[in-house]
Amino acid sequence: MEPSSGSRGAGHPVTPVAAVLPAGGSGERLGGATPKQFCAVQGRPLVSYAVRAMERIGWISSIIVVVSPENTETMKSIVEKYGHKRVTIVKGGTTRHRSIFNGLKVFAEYEFSNHLLQKPEVVIIHDAVRPFVEEDIISKVVMAAKEHGAAGAIRPLVSTVIASAADGCLDHSLERARYRASEMPQAFLFDIIYEAYQQCTDYDLDYGTECLHLALKYCKTNAKLVEGTADLWKVTYKRDLYAAESIIKDNLSQQVCVITDVKEAVAEVGFLLHESLKSQIKVEAILASLSKNDSHLQNVFPGQCYNFVCVNDKKYAIQETQQLVDMLEKSNTPLLYPVVLILVHLDISENISFSFGMEELTRIKKFAMEVKKKNILVYGLLIQYK
Amino acid sequence: MEPSSGSRGAGHPVTPVAAVLPAGGSGERLGGATPKQFCAVQGRPLVSYAVRAMERIGWISSIIVVVSPENTETMKSIVEKYGHKRVTIVKGGTTRHRSIFNGLKVFAEYEFSNHLLQKPEVVIIHDAVRPFVEEDIISKVVMAAKEHGAAGAIRPLVSTVIASAADGCLDHSLERARYRASEMPQAFLFDIIYEAYQQCTDYDLDYGTECLHLALKYCKTNAKLVEGTADLWKVTYKRDLYAAESIIKDNLSQQVCVITDVKEAVAEVGFLLHESLKSQIKVEAILASLSKNDSHLQNVFPGQCYNFVCVNDKKYAIQETQQLVDMLEKSNTPLLYPVVLILVHLDISENISFSFGMEELTRIKKFAMEVKKKNILVYGLLIQYK
Repeated sequence: MEPSSGSRGAGHPVTPVAAVLPAGGSGERLGGATPKQFCAVQGRPLVSYAVRAMERIGWISSIIVVVSPENTETMKSIVEKYGHKRVTIVKGGTTRHRSIFNGLKVFAEYEFSNHLLQKPEVVIIHDAVRPFVEEDIISKVVMAAKEHGAAGAIRPLVSTVIASAADGCLDHSLERARYRASEMPQAFLFDIIYEAYQQCTDYDLDYGTECLHLALKYCKTNAKLVEGTADLWKVTYKRDLYAAESIIKDNLSQQVCVITDVKEAVAEVGFLLHESLKSQIKVEAILASLSKNDSHLQNVFPGQCYNFVCVNDKKYAIQETQQLVDMLEKSNTPLLYPVVLILVHLDISENISFSFGMEELTRIKKFAMEVKKKNILVYGLLIQYK
Repeated sequence: MEPSSGSRGAGHPVTPVAAVLPAGGSGERLGGATPKQFCAVQGRPLVSYAVRAMERIGWISSIIVVVSPENTETMKSIVEKYGHKRVTIVKGGTTRHRSIFNGLKVFAEYEFSNHLLQKPEVVIIHDAVRPFVEEDIISKVVMAAKEHGAAGAIRPLVSTVIASAADGCLDHSLERARYRASEMPQAFLFDIIYEAYQQCTDYDLDYGTECLHLALKYCKTNAKLVEGTADLWKVTYKRDLYAAESIIKDNLSQQVCVITDVKEAVAEVGFLLHESLKSQIKVEAILASLSKNDSHLQNVFPGQCYNFVCVNDKKYAIQETQQLVDMLEKSNTPLLYPVVLILVHLDISENISFSFGMEELTRIKKFAMEVKKKNILVYGLLIQYK
């Protein structure tokens, strides 16, 4: 399979790539009843952020989410609710390694499906509880795996690591600079990691924690280590959920793009809006007609400008909004954080009734509910004056 | 020195104990200009929480805060602003170990002061960027240090630790279950850790990270390892500041104690307040006269009941508030999180003027500003009716 045409930027691997997301953990360290991958952060389960982070990368052909059998239905409803694509849900095993192995089997054995998914050349393994993984590090790890057979993100150690003796006293401490924390994502040539899982012992499957270790032990593959970013950290404790929530809020764009129609009266409103907003947030004003697929507008999407105010005086304002949503989706802009889209409909004619306006707002409301699962928040504002 | 009479609970060490808080870090991992220990969390610098956590323990006789020379004035103003007691500010060295060594010297050398502080038997070392340390773990570590010469809190590893080879590939991974993350607090017999610092090499001072290691290497002391709680983690990245903020908000007590005078009319108001609040928060109502130092009231302080509503009809309501603040302070209740104290003054007499009420409120306002630095938030409410 060739990478999809939707992939952004240079340097992505021209290789069939799939991703396996183990999401079978019980979250006991979190101290709550809900496993952490299903905990809501800003109203959305953590696992959905991780799936979304993979999904928005066009060259990842399929995403395997491995959940414990009792959470299959929960995961199914998450996929449905947030409109996730290219996802296959697989039942996990009793340990992390057994779950990952199950996830890999959908490409090679008939144990979990009556049709096999197309076997990837490289498989990414990433935790469902690491919501902030960026395309850049995924791409680096995948390319390193292609070259070396295995690769994984690492981070400097935050604390010194020590070994304790049988009496509960310090045996020795490790020199911090010589060691690294092994993080995710990791990636492997599929044949290597699958071979490693087939060869490894029950002890490995039950007590092991490190995929890179299996590749080394059973396939003599020394993984390439790739320096990761701080946001790769794993949500482990309740405080990590707090942190994730704050990061998501922080990432909500403070930038707004005001789109106004070319008609004089409307353009003027857009200009006034721009003037009054600009002291508080970063505003860009664009004179464009959405219906014309303006190239100026096309250039906005790949950037940082996530929120939109559209001012128009069209009778069927919702059509323009739908168009904007379509453009957003086609632009492959990562919609990991909510995009706010405010539709301001100026009704300057005298012959449109109040009830028509209300109907229009009802339509917008319905549309807003539909696109909310895509992480686009639509609001409508109808201004009638004579 | 004997532990102060203010110490709470059983099991505290009857031993002269001091604490050294290295706070000299530059916070480069945080990505901001302000070193993390001086970053405000809920309006209060992180270091102030750590100082407070030590200060509220009566049996810690002195607290040495080691800051880089350029932050001495900042630290001084923090001590003043938040009314910290028993704190000595010492100028740090170029590395963490050199800073801790400087902190220890105030008990043994004339380098930093013209009078030595009384040498403790046990010294606690704790990071300024670990704000949530509880008395229980400090006490355990101190007692273990008294017995073993050295002790430190540990936590399970969150990620697998790996060693990389010179080519940037995986050399080997450590079996996660056999290792632990070394956290803080740590504690040492003063003579052992001071000896270790005097003996250790410049290489240790410049590149080492682990005090337990120095005690082992130079004094053959195998530290006792004490399992710590999750909240001991070190604020390292920006996300940790978010987490700290959320934890503090979470810890704001949801419990309120309504204190009403024994007089019938006032008691009735207290009872009604109790009735109407109890559906929303946990409320305890106490019929007590503050002026009598009621034993019922005394029993409230050591518990979880952090917020107070005092209903009275005394002419000089502020005196009662002052008394309550005094009692709070003397009770040694940990005021790590804000205590809200609402004073409701019922004026049921007919001969008190409006202006007198306003004067009273002004006095309360002034008093509120004074006690705010102690983490007590006082609000006054004057109800006049005929």
